[in-house]
Amino acid sequence: MDQQRLKVLLDIEHGIIQAPMAGGITTAALVSEVSNAGGLGMIAGGSLEPEALRSLIRETRQRTDRNFGVNLFIPREFEVTDAAIVRAYERLRPAFDAFGLEQKPVTPPAPEAIEEKFDAQLDVIIEEQVLVASFIFGVPADDQITRLKEAGTVILATATTAAEALQIETAGLDAVVLQGSEAGGHRGAFLGRSEDSLVGLMSLIPETAARVEIPVIAAGGIMTGRNIAAARVLGAEGVQMGTAFLAVEESGAHPMHKSILTESEDVPAVLTKLFTGRQARAVKNRFISEFSAYQEEMVEYPVQRSLTQPFQDASKESGAPDYAMLLAGEGKQFAREISARGLVEALVAETKESRSDI
Amino acid sequence: MDQQRLKVLLDIEHGIIQAPMAGGITTAALVSEVSNAGGLGMIAGGSLEPEALRSLIRETRQRTDRNFGVNLFIPREFEVTDAAIVRAYERLRPAFDAFGLEQKPVTPPAPEAIEEKFDAQLDVIIEEQVLVASFIFGVPADDQITRLKEAGTVILATATTAAEALQIETAGLDAVVLQGSEAGGHRGAFLGRSEDSLVGLMSLIPETAARVEIPVIAAGGIMTGRNIAAARVLGAEGVQMGTAFLAVEESGAHPMHKSILTESEDVPAVLTKLFTGRQARAVKNRFISEFSAYQEEMVEYPVQRSLTQPFQDASKESGAPDYAMLLAGEGKQFAREISARGLVEALVAETKESRSDI
Repeated sequence: MDQQRLKVLLDIEHGIIQAPMAGGITTAALVSEVSNAGGLGMIAGGSLEPEALRSLIRETRQRTDRNFGVNLFIPREFEVTDAAIVRAYERLRPAFDAFGLEQKPVTPPAPEAIEEKFDAQLDVIIEEQVLVASFIFGVPADDQITRLKEAGTVILATATTAAEALQIETAGLDAVVLQGSEAGGHRGAFLGRSEDSLVGLMSLIPETAARVEIPVIAAGGIMTGRNIAAARVLGAEGVQMGTAFLAVEESGAHPMHKSILTESEDVPAVLTKLFTGRQARAVKNRFISEFSAYQEEMVEYPVQRSLTQPFQDASKESGAPDYAMLLAGEGKQFAREISARGLVEALVAETKESRSDI
Repeated sequence: MDQQRLKVLLDIEHGIIQAPMAGGITTAALVSEVSNAGGLGMIAGGSLEPEALRSLIRETRQRTDRNFGVNLFIPREFEVTDAAIVRAYERLRPAFDAFGLEQKPVTPPAPEAIEEKFDAQLDVIIEEQVLVASFIFGVPADDQITRLKEAGTVILATATTAAEALQIETAGLDAVVLQGSEAGGHRGAFLGRSEDSLVGLMSLIPETAARVEIPVIAAGGIMTGRNIAAARVLGAEGVQMGTAFLAVEESGAHPMHKSILTESEDVPAVLTKLFTGRQARAVKNRFISEFSAYQEEMVEYPVQRSLTQPFQDASKESGAPDYAMLLAGEGKQFAREISARGLVEALVAETKESRSDI
């Protein structure tokens, strides 16, 4: 592997990317400090309104002279009827009752509005001259890729299988983020069924590295330098780390979300569609245990997310994890309370100790 | 890691164990050749009658002066009613019809008979002075451990989580085989739900190595020396490899089973309970796709295995994979048609090339 080419491509010292994590986790302080430490900070832009994204980019830029990235969600079709919403709400009522919350009417967003927002987000990335745009849930359309390339943007996308990585390479993108089954948060599968696209990095990295020419960035369960060294041996040129950066001081994650990572040693981080309608890995809690049987009565992303948001928020505010969406990857117990810079430096040193480099 | 202690413990040159694979795959030729090449061959004894196990041990011994192992299934409780069998059979009828097969009456085995068989299998291991006994689906009872230890047997057991590995260590066993989510064949989970015990080796190895003192042997998706080097970096002292040895010349696997490994590049190996009633990873085929929706109407292990065996066999004999149980791990496309000795030698060389050893 010519690891150097990834560093040149992304303008970084260390092949460590801080994964985009939605919900206010990727603050300007987090993103800028990762970049200042020689990695690549990444703003989770997917759920931000275009102008909020612009503000966050500008705030981040005030804190660093280095480059960073923005991640966006490729719009996906969905079908949710009013009757399905009523049925899902009925089933979810106990979670609302637990906090004395009302169930307010939810209207599915129009597909055109989602496309328009995505297009406006792309405009912001181009106008603000962000170096790196990364994508999940698919590949941008050809004309969108052209627009980004004309602006000099480096483009990454997320794959969960070698076949998806091949499609990303064929579309002309610059590198692929390989999401192993270990990863926390939403699954990025876009070709096959999400359930059939759960491959551990031990297999996924060498499978993919054997089939694509573009740099492979490994994501999922990467928490220590030992993981980084293993990913390098398997053929990755860099890593993307979410849960490890979720826990650091500059992260905007709720304190309970941070502390549960190390306090839930024998509680698994499991896959569920219950919170948002899309398969995601989260710390197993009461809501997941009690509602798993009703998965078929729930609705698709993004509507399910709107239905469950009120009690997710209330659970977090109450300081109890029972009904909160605590996204986390495998290996979460290796999380450390440390600064972003401290984490990057520790990772580089540990990787070297494992007789590798990053 | 003091890798040397595993080699001393198992009396091997290379920390490579050939995984036990039921159904006639672990022939005397396969097991003996792995041991002759400096690894540890392993007889899949779980489903063999005690005297058949004894014969296979003796046949293997005629082919090697080196030691080898025998793997057994820890008996587990199950509950299957006649009504449930009728319902499952009804649902499975199309698979029987596909081959013009009758559905013959199936009587669940008595729990005492299973315990008796297990005890007799243990006697065979002790009487035949097999060096290594390995277990899956749990930990032997204290008196069984004592009997084995008095005979000088080295005892291994399979864990799918760090908590299971701790229990194995606490019971006094000598080493733990860590089954990552990548692994083919049956899941060995025995503490929590099998679905909550799917951890990729990238996380499972360091998690477990941090919590137990006994040697950790990594299993799941290990197909090349690169995988071995990565497992070593993560903290494993050795590896156990199934799918890679399934494909070798001496393996008793059906030729179609061997060839499909490399011919199904973009077909995933997925988890299913449909074949045996226990969660297992197998190449996705027509049976898995069409019957997944009826999982709840199926019965528990080992009765489900008896129900599906006729069409599994017929499918294999017909040379078509549609209704066959083609157990395989992730990374199956790296399988090679080579001798067992050739594979061990290639793995050792590749591991060295990855700047590690085994």
